[in-house]
Amino acid sequence: MTYIRANGRTADALRPLTITRGYTIHAEGSVLICFGNTKVLCTASVEEKVPPHKRGSGEGWVTAEYGMLPRSTHTRSDREAARGKQSGRTQEIQRLIGRSLRAVVDLAKLGERSIVIDCDVIQADGGTRTAAITGAYVALGDAVQGLIAAGKIAVSPIVNPVAAISVGIVEGTPLLDLEYTEDSACDTDMNVVMTGAGHFVEVQGTAEGAAFSRAEMDQLLALADKGIRELIAAQAAALAQPLVKG
Amino acid sequence: MTYIRANGRTADALRPLTITRGYTIHAEGSVLICFGNTKVLCTASVEEKVPPHKRGSGEGWVTAEYGMLPRSTHTRSDREAARGKQSGRTQEIQRLIGRSLRAVVDLAKLGERSIVIDCDVIQADGGTRTAAITGAYVALGDAVQGLIAAGKIAVSPIVNPVAAISVGIVEGTPLLDLEYTEDSACDTDMNVVMTGAGHFVEVQGTAEGAAFSRAEMDQLLALADKGIRELIAAQAAALAQPLVKG
Amino acid sequence: MTYIRANGRTADALRPLTITRGYTIHAEGSVLICFGNTKVLCTASVEEKVPPHKRGSGEGWVTAEYGMLPRSTHTRSDREAARGKQSGRTQEIQRLIGRSLRAVVDLAKLGERSIVIDCDVIQADGGTRTAAITGAYVALGDAVQGLIAAGKIAVSPIVNPVAAISVGIVEGTPLLDLEYTEDSACDTDMNVVMTGAGHFVEVQGTAEGAAFSRAEMDQLLALADKGIRELIAAQAAALAQPLVKG
Amino acid sequence: MTYIRANGRTADALRPLTITRGYTIHAEGSVLICFGNTKVLCTASVEEKVPPHKRGSGEGWVTAEYGMLPRSTHTRSDREAARGKQSGRTQEIQRLIGRSLRAVVDLAKLGERSIVIDCDVIQADGGTRTAAITGAYVALGDAVQGLIAAGKIAVSPIVNPVAAISVGIVEGTPLLDLEYTEDSACDTDMNVVMTGAGHFVEVQGTAEGAAFSRAEMDQLLALADKGIRELIAAQAAALAQPLVKG
Amino acid sequence: MTYIRANGRTADALRPLTITRGYTIHAEGSVLICFGNTKVLCTASVEEKVPPHKRGSGEGWVTAEYGMLPRSTHTRSDREAARGKQSGRTQEIQRLIGRSLRAVVDLAKLGERSIVIDCDVIQADGGTRTAAITGAYVALGDAVQGLIAAGKIAVSPIVNPVAAISVGIVEGTPLLDLEYTEDSACDTDMNVVMTGAGHFVEVQGTAEGAAFSRAEMDQLLALADKGIRELIAAQAAALAQPLVKG
Amino acid sequence: MTYIRANGRTADALRPLTITRGYTIHAEGSVLICFGNTKVLCTASVEEKVPPHKRGSGEGWVTAEYGMLPRSTHTRSDREAARGKQSGRTQEIQRLIGRSLRAVVDLAKLGERSIVIDCDVIQADGGTRTAAITGAYVALGDAVQGLIAAGKIAVSPIVNPVAAISVGIVEGTPLLDLEYTEDSACDTDMNVVMTGAGHFVEVQGTAEGAAFSRAEMDQLLALADKGIRELIAAQAAALAQPLVKG
Repeated sequence: MTYIRANGRTADALRPLTITRGYTIHAEGSVLICFGNTKVLCTASVEEKVPPHKRGSGEGWVTAEYGMLPRSTHTRSDREAARGKQSGRTQEIQRLIGRSLRAVVDLAKLGERSIVIDCDVIQADGGTRTAAITGAYVALGDAVQGLIAAGKIAVSPIVNPVAAISVGIVEGTPLLDLEYTEDSACDTDMNVVMTGAGHFVEVQGTAEGAAFSRAEMDQLLALADKGIRELIAAQAAALAQPLVKG
Repeated sequence: MTYIRANGRTADALRPLTITRGYTIHAEGSVLICFGNTKVLCTASVEEKVPPHKRGSGEGWVTAEYGMLPRSTHTRSDREAARGKQSGRTQEIQRLIGRSLRAVVDLAKLGERSIVIDCDVIQADGGTRTAAITGAYVALGDAVQGLIAAGKIAVSPIVNPVAAISVGIVEGTPLLDLEYTEDSACDTDMNVVMTGAGHFVEVQGTAEGAAFSRAEMDQLLALADKGIRELIAAQAAALAQPLVKG
Repeated sequence: MTYIRANGRTADALRPLTITRGYTIHAEGSVLICFGNTKVLCTASVEEKVPPHKRGSGEGWVTAEYGMLPRSTHTRSDREAARGKQSGRTQEIQRLIGRSLRAVVDLAKLGERSIVIDCDVIQADGGTRTAAITGAYVALGDAVQGLIAAGKIAVSPIVNPVAAISVGIVEGTPLLDLEYTEDSACDTDMNVVMTGAGHFVEVQGTAEGAAFSRAEMDQLLALADKGIRELIAAQAAALAQPLVKG
Repeated sequence: MTYIRANGRTADALRPLTITRGYTIHAEGSVLICFGNTKVLCTASVEEKVPPHKRGSGEGWVTAEYGMLPRSTHTRSDREAARGKQSGRTQEIQRLIGRSLRAVVDLAKLGERSIVIDCDVIQADGGTRTAAITGAYVALGDAVQGLIAAGKIAVSPIVNPVAAISVGIVEGTPLLDLEYTEDSACDTDMNVVMTGAGHFVEVQGTAEGAAFSRAEMDQLLALADKGIRELIAAQAAALAQPLVKG
Repeated sequence: MTYIRANGRTADALRPLTITRGYTIHAEGSVLICFGNTKVLCTASVEEKVPPHKRGSGEGWVTAEYGMLPRSTHTRSDREAARGKQSGRTQEIQRLIGRSLRAVVDLAKLGERSIVIDCDVIQADGGTRTAAITGAYVALGDAVQGLIAAGKIAVSPIVNPVAAISVGIVEGTPLLDLEYTEDSACDTDMNVVMTGAGHFVEVQGTAEGAAFSRAEMDQLLALADKGIRELIAAQAAALAQPLVKG
Repeated sequence: MTYIRANGRTADALRPLTITRGYTIHAEGSVLICFGNTKVLCTASVEEKVPPHKRGSGEGWVTAEYGMLPRSTHTRSDREAARGKQSGRTQEIQRLIGRSLRAVVDLAKLGERSIVIDCDVIQADGGTRTAAITGAYVALGDAVQGLIAAGKIAVSPIVNPVAAISVGIVEGTPLLDLEYTEDSACDTDMNVVMTGAGHFVEVQGTAEGAAFSRAEMDQLLALADKGIRELIAAQAAALAQPLVKG
């Protein structure tokens, strides 16, 4: 028997996707990305300095931070700034976003400067980290175009598009792009980060309930592959439009 | 000689004001308020518990937290959650918001529950604390209406509307509702919180440059009075509409 | 009907005021100031360095820190050093003290050095922040005289005296210089920082109970003006004496 | 061309593996596990209490903490206790260990008590997290046997063995159980946690250099499957011996 | 050759000693103790609760906290509350003070309540920890007398007086009660805490320069014995006076 | 009547002592020292930098850090890294270890570099700090030999051996080298650090129960003297062997 999704969505369908560039005016890249009710603001900030381990290397750096507004969730979560530390989950996610972006950037071509990506969840309904990675790529693209337009770099250091999606098995049915109620009910949850060339940057699968078999894993990877191809097409379409700020 | 403001704004004019209720779907009250380019998301969360000093009192509590997204500002600011503490400025502002709202709420009528207001700055261009107070009042109103609709309280504990605005003297000219470039250049900066009855809840005036005279203070208070009356009218108009979420 | 104060004090009278210079031996300025039972030790320390935002500017810096001894209060408060952070109240107060002093100092004339003011409350009975500002000005004066005597600066960078007092409305009566029991009972509480020229450096009024009218504010400002003139006279008298240490 | 490993190890061979039970005397389970030069002490502590989210549920809890001695590494790392916080990497690893163990424990059968697993790296040479999971399972087993022997539970809540191994691609060659120099040089790094039934509990693959293809992933999963079967056999052999402490 | 002390003090002489009871008005015991230029305010606060390890035991608790005002020292030290943690030195000293007082209190006779001693250094010139212990004993005595006067306890739980002094060897000369310049120059530094019966509560000797011989230790202990007998006589004399507050 | 020790140990006997050099492979010195069931891993790390107060002095630095694995103790202790701070006890101990080692090192001969000693308790049964000091000396010796072998220094900066032991009075009997059950029961506890020349580096005696007399102190010092001579002989014997790593 098959799990029936909300809103008539099929098992292999993404939620409605919107990518709004120039969402805020100050950042070099600023993208609001919505995977259905999940809304994440991704900003890219260019800084003319690098962390200590890159100083004098001639190479740049790309890093990311992640946060959730306290009431982006169903019930209010404590504000991490008030608690005085970031949770393990937050750190895990921001490290993942940073690695995913660095995997498609030639840091030597970026020059000795940093691009800091801030991914802040305005509203959460599952899949915030995958929306963050997918939106962050677009914000990064705008920041890079700004550097080229300003004559600071000659060619783009971005060597490949990258996007991410969650997949999982709910009541025996493999599903693409889990929303919150599905995520809470799933036995297996997998986040996949893939390049435009169809290669993996990250695969993180977790058995929330029963351990999963190799056959189940293959089904999930196929779903993820389909979803990420659609996301990468949407990123390209968004970036093909002229940028309007604010 | 008189200071000339951007966009032909007169000295006693507010910036374009928008108040969007139901901006996000989970919070009991959720308001995006824009004072020109300053955009603050104010959510109100109802929690069926009170802090220790109110336990068993039969009275409720209203409190606020404030934050700025790292790239809401012209250049990126450190994320407070990553630094591990809230700045003195952040604490000052969130204490001010909380006091301002409690000044217009009858805590006994609220019953032994809390309303937590989160004010998160999406984009900053001066006046974030006054926008936060003004928007928070509307979010509080929606949360209270939800409690009444749910039969949890019989009458509204809100005894008065409240709003806030900044005023200041720039190059000798008293101005209403300072934007960032004006705020940076001003000699005197004053934040005024006032009720619908025209009474003061808070007055915080600071000489950034030269100390200010009593006559200057009188001019500023008159400007603030005018601006707050307009804000309170706008709050009432916004709250008169039916609430649509998301 | 009028509120009757303790010890036959009239509504517009300061508490007994003492200013003891040279209270401790190590600091460049060291003042014990008593507003009645409120006792604050204010020390001024000269440091031949400035914070990062002033480096290379040729300008100096004046900053302040504030603390209360754990049993300066009626019941013991937690030690902030043991709790691992300063409260929001502490940060608000020390920022206020610093701004108030910088408002009367020409930082260029100070030269590229810092004066750090420490205000530590030995005994609290209301008005600790205003006593701190008033005493800090005297400690600052002694530190500056020391710099002149040592030939490090030629003229005093202090351009104006500054002092502070609290005013408030208790049971309908406007009062000058609130002691603790009055402060706890007041509807409106205002702290005013003023220069010797009668101009405002800071005005911070808060409605603890009912919001206050413009007429009430005018009464409070008049009281504050009277009190601050007396404080500034007392500061001048104290500074006119020869300094004896320890 | 094929990468040549140190010590004549073949691409699909584990490093020399030792599992020493009863390594210290106080803990309910205490295991020193060595994957070659990687040495991790895993202790299991039984506590007759559960965290808040399990109180009154009748269910128990299993959690893990991870640390590295400052000089377990080639160059000394800062002590996390002295720095005042655990790194993102530490938190990621301890969360992974905890999830991996909970995946094979029936928390209802454990009863309302906790087992806390501490994994402390005495010496690091790559693969510390996989050694930690593999050793932690054995320490957990000893703690559970102690509970049964003491009559506190009737049957073991452990439903499956679990072990973990790293795999990766170095200079084009897929390798099992990476040591530090291999880990530093690899393009792709994958940690796999698997049950005795051959099902996945966690799969975490990361492209350190070039993104990896589906075919490469299949090769790595096959290597991991082989290694984990050997580890699970070694765990069983170790647990079949009588326990001697200290 | 013998070291010549400042102010004609002999090697076996204490500095001028003053003990002022009732120094502040709120605390149950409040003592300013001066060992020459070293001035420490010791307050004793009675709290009708005990820490977790004493709850339900019928026994009370005595504990101490220690701090230095930032400019109590020759050059300004960072404020521990601002730094966000107490130094190792601070913690060592406050643990020593607490142990020393508990050594002379029968916690069962105190009843299930706490006495918290705060020792805050107003001015430092060597020997702050020994002055703190000596003054804390007097503050403790006043707090205990208050409990007896209030009928909360019938007899004093204090079983013995206790006091402390430093001794050390400077340029080969054993000295009693080191002041700062002596402390900085000494080869061996010893703090001795002793009861009125002449027994040791704590002996902490440290070789700052060359290690010290058994003969030197004997000389130092004899000096300490002499000094502590004088301190205990002075404590008794102070406590024999009627208490006047403020 | 005399207290009877476990395992037929006499009052003046050390526990079985083992010193294993080269216990781990990365550190310049790595020693596992066992005082009976107390096991401490002491590593010495050479770093070619010094703390700020030694920069440019031409002198080096020796410092120590101390930690206990969470389940080194009878019941599990919280992990200090997870709690976010080191306890007062931890700081006291690591400061003691650092001072003890610096007392026997000529920092000028070390050159401008640091040796950091990490003492991590693998298993605790009383006397962890004295085992740490005794083992740290051996690890320091190996690190120094490495510097000489590498031609970085010409002669050893170690001027004296140093070791430490605990002594105490249990049920009236003075005992050498207390194990945990003795330590918990003792009235007086003393830690003594002594050089090979029989001189004191540190003496820290604490009355846990009744204060102790001069005669008791003399007995304890004599016991400590005997024990430390044996420890120093054992250190010398260990260091006389060729070093084998891992």
